[in-house]
Amino acid sequence: MHKLKDIVRPTTLIVSSKLNEVIGLDLTIASETFQHTGSFKFRAAYNLALNVPNEEILTASSGNFGQALAYACRLVGKRCTVVMPDTSAQVKINAVRGFGATVDLIDTKTVGRNERVAELAAQMPHAYHASAYDDQFVIDGNSTLGYELAGREFDVVIVPVGGGGLISGIINGLNHNKDNAAVYGAEPLLGNDATRSFRAGRLIPNEIEPMTIADGARTISLGNLNWPIISKGVKDMLEVPDETIAAALRMYYDLANLKCEPTGAVSLGAVLENKELFEGKKICVVVSGGNVDAEVYAKLIIKPLLNTEVR
Amino acid sequence: MHKLKDIVRPTTLIVSSKLNEVIGLDLTIASETFQHTGSFKFRAAYNLALNVPNEEILTASSGNFGQALAYACRLVGKRCTVVMPDTSAQVKINAVRGFGATVDLIDTKTVGRNERVAELAAQMPHAYHASAYDDQFVIDGNSTLGYELAGREFDVVIVPVGGGGLISGIINGLNHNKDNAAVYGAEPLLGNDATRSFRAGRLIPNEIEPMTIADGARTISLGNLNWPIISKGVKDMLEVPDETIAAALRMYYDLANLKCEPTGAVSLGAVLENKELFEGKKICVVVSGGNVDAEVYAKLIIKPLLNTEVR
Repeated sequence: MHKLKDIVRPTTLIVSSKLNEVIGLDLTIASETFQHTGSFKFRAAYNLALNVPNEEILTASSGNFGQALAYACRLVGKRCTVVMPDTSAQVKINAVRGFGATVDLIDTKTVGRNERVAELAAQMPHAYHASAYDDQFVIDGNSTLGYELAGREFDVVIVPVGGGGLISGIINGLNHNKDNAAVYGAEPLLGNDATRSFRAGRLIPNEIEPMTIADGARTISLGNLNWPIISKGVKDMLEVPDETIAAALRMYYDLANLKCEPTGAVSLGAVLENKELFEGKKICVVVSGGNVDAEVYAKLIIKPLLNTEVR
Repeated sequence: MHKLKDIVRPTTLIVSSKLNEVIGLDLTIASETFQHTGSFKFRAAYNLALNVPNEEILTASSGNFGQALAYACRLVGKRCTVVMPDTSAQVKINAVRGFGATVDLIDTKTVGRNERVAELAAQMPHAYHASAYDDQFVIDGNSTLGYELAGREFDVVIVPVGGGGLISGIINGLNHNKDNAAVYGAEPLLGNDATRSFRAGRLIPNEIEPMTIADGARTISLGNLNWPIISKGVKDMLEVPDETIAAALRMYYDLANLKCEPTGAVSLGAVLENKELFEGKKICVVVSGGNVDAEVYAKLIIKPLLNTEVR
């Protein structure tokens, strides 16, 4: 069995002179789109699959974690069941199945995700129930990205936030390496629970699953393990409207030749909304993943959601 | 002024387990999509702009070389004029202008490209007239990619071929490093002059500019300097129908999260058409660039040109 650090692909650092010229800032893209299974989630999933004693793992995931866990379980020879909303991107459902995992599709309007997972957990008493973000193995797996970003003299690292697994891993990884980069969380405005929590100083969930185009950030709440790391370690939380997320995705397409999924573009969206914060700084924008249905992507690159002037 | 080797971005090596699984071969993608100006052409252009004594450079280019030369000239402080067919991708025309070069758009149905360049050359007697492929500075610049691929134990390197500047540079770079990888040229079937030349043992041009979707390979003929390198150094030339180029582009989208332009996908197309040649080999497919208009790309990822079963 490979150790985590031997099997994870190093993040792809991209500097686009065109992008930097158009935006007028010094950006380095840390892209996880070429990670195994196309998103950072593999870092978490492999660490978990490798280290839990159970032979069977159960999770609920809108897609990227499910895909990553399915592949990780195949690599370490464990069984895997993934509960997915039937609104998940088809490309993600197919990928999970392709890696040999069992997919349990639910209509989230009639069945709660947690409810269904509890049902399945009762049927599979020996399975480990893995959260996509609220799990120490997940945070530790994601911290490998923080290790990679440390020592590169970034003043600022901006990270998409859904459940908070990636940003808490990055904070831990940077801290462990005594790197003082300021870490900003970037969150879709439509699901701004982390921002509201950060402002209030206590964990506040969304009322319902937010229907942002950033489908990887359709989480009800930050995880309990992530919250203390985020509340202490984040410099600020930045909210990004969906139209700016779309504009950022298109800028990656036009100016950096980077295919990214909407959730991956939230960090650049946060830059577009807050340029004045980052002037003169050496900025790292983390792109969390690249998995997006062709039909969705095609619409986004041809026609941004609104006629925004952000571009 | 930066030396070539200090300013060129290393190629991005990507291994996609999903792609390799679907194709059933051991592929490593060498992607030049994140090179300066989004294609390998920057290697050639910068070497040329840096080393010719002239203060003004004139070229004809369907886009990527023009863009690369415009940027290179800006970096080294020289003037640049680029003759482009008015059918060039808009994104490429805009980019050339954005780098401060003069764009001279021509209707190739009424004016020959060479004719127009000759006219302009007469008006600019002190300008260096740069070929996008048939120039020693160009070949030497592109050889840097051969240096990067050498020593990685590839059995096979597959390279898109238009005018032949990239493949002859790669052959020279590999040879110089005593790397014995077999180099295959991949060419659109619609513009198969290099394949016909290779079979005949003499340089044979296309009758007219071929209207393949691989717009970077719409060349009439291999260059005179490229031909002897290619005829001696290439293992074989492989022809790729446009629908297979489109299928390859879509596979990069779906399976590798890689945005590439049609010309960049010709090497993977050659693999899809000739899988039996490459079984059990460690294969490098070179992706020459990533610049493609959003409208063109959106159509290609949603609906391949034909209902091909290649995918």
